[in-house]
Amino acid sequence: LSTNYKAEIISIGTELLRGEVLDTNANYLATELPLTGMQLHSVTMAGDNFEQLCELLKQALERSRIVITTGGLGPTEDDLTRECIAAVLDETVSVDAGLEQQLRDIFKQFGREMSPHNIKQAWLIPSAEALPNPRGTAPGWWVTNNDKIIVAMPGPPREMTLMWRNEVKPRILSKLSGNIILSRTIKLYGLPEAEVAERAESFFSTDNPDLGIYARTDGIHLRLIAHGENSESLLRQAEEKIYDIFGPNIWGKDDDTLIGMIGNWLAENGKTLAIMEDSTSGLLANIISGIPGNSGFFNGSLIAPSDEIKIAMGVPKELIDTHGAVSPEVAEAMAVAARVNLSADIGLSTSGILTEHVSERRRPGLTYIGIADSDGQASWSQNYARFRDELGQREATGAFFRLRERLIKFHNAGLRPKG
Amino acid sequence: LSTNYKAEIISIGTELLRGEVLDTNANYLATELPLTGMQLHSVTMAGDNFEQLCELLKQALERSRIVITTGGLGPTEDDLTRECIAAVLDETVSVDAGLEQQLRDIFKQFGREMSPHNIKQAWLIPSAEALPNPRGTAPGWWVTNNDKIIVAMPGPPREMTLMWRNEVKPRILSKLSGNIILSRTIKLYGLPEAEVAERAESFFSTDNPDLGIYARTDGIHLRLIAHGENSESLLRQAEEKIYDIFGPNIWGKDDDTLIGMIGNWLAENGKTLAIMEDSTSGLLANIISGIPGNSGFFNGSLIAPSDEIKIAMGVPKELIDTHGAVSPEVAEAMAVAARVNLSADIGLSTSGILTEHVSERRRPGLTYIGIADSDGQASWSQNYARFRDELGQREATGAFFRLRERLIKFHNAGLRPKG
Repeated sequence: LSTNYKAEIISIGTELLRGEVLDTNANYLATELPLTGMQLHSVTMAGDNFEQLCELLKQALERSRIVITTGGLGPTEDDLTRECIAAVLDETVSVDAGLEQQLRDIFKQFGREMSPHNIKQAWLIPSAEALPNPRGTAPGWWVTNNDKIIVAMPGPPREMTLMWRNEVKPRILSKLSGNIILSRTIKLYGLPEAEVAERAESFFSTDNPDLGIYARTDGIHLRLIAHGENSESLLRQAEEKIYDIFGPNIWGKDDDTLIGMIGNWLAENGKTLAIMEDSTSGLLANIISGIPGNSGFFNGSLIAPSDEIKIAMGVPKELIDTHGAVSPEVAEAMAVAARVNLSADIGLSTSGILTEHVSERRRPGLTYIGIADSDGQASWSQNYARFRDELGQREATGAFFRLRERLIKFHNAGLRPKG
Repeated sequence: LSTNYKAEIISIGTELLRGEVLDTNANYLATELPLTGMQLHSVTMAGDNFEQLCELLKQALERSRIVITTGGLGPTEDDLTRECIAAVLDETVSVDAGLEQQLRDIFKQFGREMSPHNIKQAWLIPSAEALPNPRGTAPGWWVTNNDKIIVAMPGPPREMTLMWRNEVKPRILSKLSGNIILSRTIKLYGLPEAEVAERAESFFSTDNPDLGIYARTDGIHLRLIAHGENSESLLRQAEEKIYDIFGPNIWGKDDDTLIGMIGNWLAENGKTLAIMEDSTSGLLANIISGIPGNSGFFNGSLIAPSDEIKIAMGVPKELIDTHGAVSPEVAEAMAVAARVNLSADIGLSTSGILTEHVSERRRPGLTYIGIADSDGQASWSQNYARFRDELGQREATGAFFRLRERLIKFHNAGLRPKG
């Protein structure tokens, strides 16, 4: 690993060491840094302690080309990031008139008194450039010291991520890596992570393109990052290879979301969707409600935890009596009932038991997904007995993939990633 | 900070540095360590690199009494935690016959061939004691070196947390801190975090009891940890102080959950609950479905995103025409309709717009919660325009608190924390 592209992160705040706050910033930056050509060497989480922070910063500067800190830019005495950077570089802080004016303007805008403590947030040192923070009072610092860079960003993730995208990432790309970097994420479903990793890694032993494997709730994401003058053709070749290996399991790429693609298709084709949920208990509805424009196609969901309510919502009592509530027949009847009662083109259902709270008649982990449309009904079973985590998410993802397959097969939906 | 109680964590795995996995282990251990009397000095996240890991381990041992590693205990060449501990302590690894037998038994039990690579997982060094891992193939190590301790635990959170609770935490308590440590968590609702922190911290300037402030989806949790011979009376006094300061805002303690307490009361009193959701879109139902025994009191939920569906589900069209869908009248009518259609004692509703997907007639951020029972109806408005994150969770928590208040006032529910 050449020092030239070596990066490290220092996450600052005693609240992190007490577990009061989960450090999602380091994880976010870890996924982002490869897109700038930098390689993350380590992350250190440290408390609000001047000596410790200075020592860490000094060591990090010796090892790495760029040191990124998050946190410690607040107005209190415990916020020591600026003080430490100044001390390590042996520079003196002073109030920057422009930053002070901006700070006073922010307080005026919110009708709040500015405490004298806040003046720290207008400090600079000679080698620091201020990075605007549209979402908070603490500007970041971009500090150049010989060939090394220190970037100080605020701790709140909303502020940090925006500053990263608008200020830090572009600067790293133009000033440090000076590289053409292209990336592509390809999204798969229906294969276990271990198998995806084994098959993909056997083809990607080099680090250009670099391959990252991310297990997400909507399947496995493969992220390719290519750099250098040939990055475009390297990326294209790698992408073709992935299509060769995983073709039928690929459902999307880059910013595609599963339910977003389905929702777009439904809205564009004037189709509506209604749901009856048992095993997912509201999760399908909740995921759909997060898509912009869902009111154009989503007619609602009926959460039916008991036999009585399923019957009241239109599932024939005889079916439950004959086949049991967890059965393909009842899953299909639930989808039909949702479609009819909520006047939708397509009905989707989930039934069964995901948790350990099992009653006599039901097997834990066995669930059914049902779909009903003008072409009839279908159902699929799934057994989650061997899984332990995120069962609801797994079931929801499974239901959306069944819906996607149905739309492709029976409704001619072109739900394939472009390209 | 005395070295005697200083702890640090090394989270190991290149997948962490690539952002493929979020390090929740460090956060979990950070919340747990104060309960053992140890103080966390820093967390370092590092890749699967022998030299780097050995260097980190050596430095950590110089600084801290106990060094906890997670990850790097798998069977592959990249899993180097055992190798590094042995190297740093200048000891030689050897296969432990007992561990090997256990390992072979696990593979036999699952009907799988044991790869020769796995034999690493039966290694020990003279100063290491094996820690059982009932959820995986990698035992942990408890390593004693002079006055210092190294604990190596596996990376998968399910394996790590169980090993922590059963093996590591008890050993730290008995061998290292030798202290009487008591803790109590007190849960508040209805006050901003900054105000809670300011009011609480002015009373708790000492570190015995130590005060932690955790912002959670169900409000603010204050955790007190007292140690030493007087820990019982110290804790009791501190708890009384917190009741004095925050009395009316305290709703639970320790393992209490809001909907769990409500659900218990409903089940014990033979009352049932039904919901109609718009703004929370399935989230209330989903939260309730996570409580053991919810089938005893939860009759279901109707997710009604549009006026048409609300009307089809029993909300009078005239009310929507007259007052608009986002109004106290419609929120109450939704609660009534849920109660009637799902044959429940109590109806609860949420309506309004939480996201940025705003139609003409609706103001973003304005929501209503409605409740209906045999005593009539009530509603409350809430404006989330100034919040940006976790609006659904905030609204859901708000709805459950309104329900709790209603049960206390109109149904004589004793929904107070014991003690």
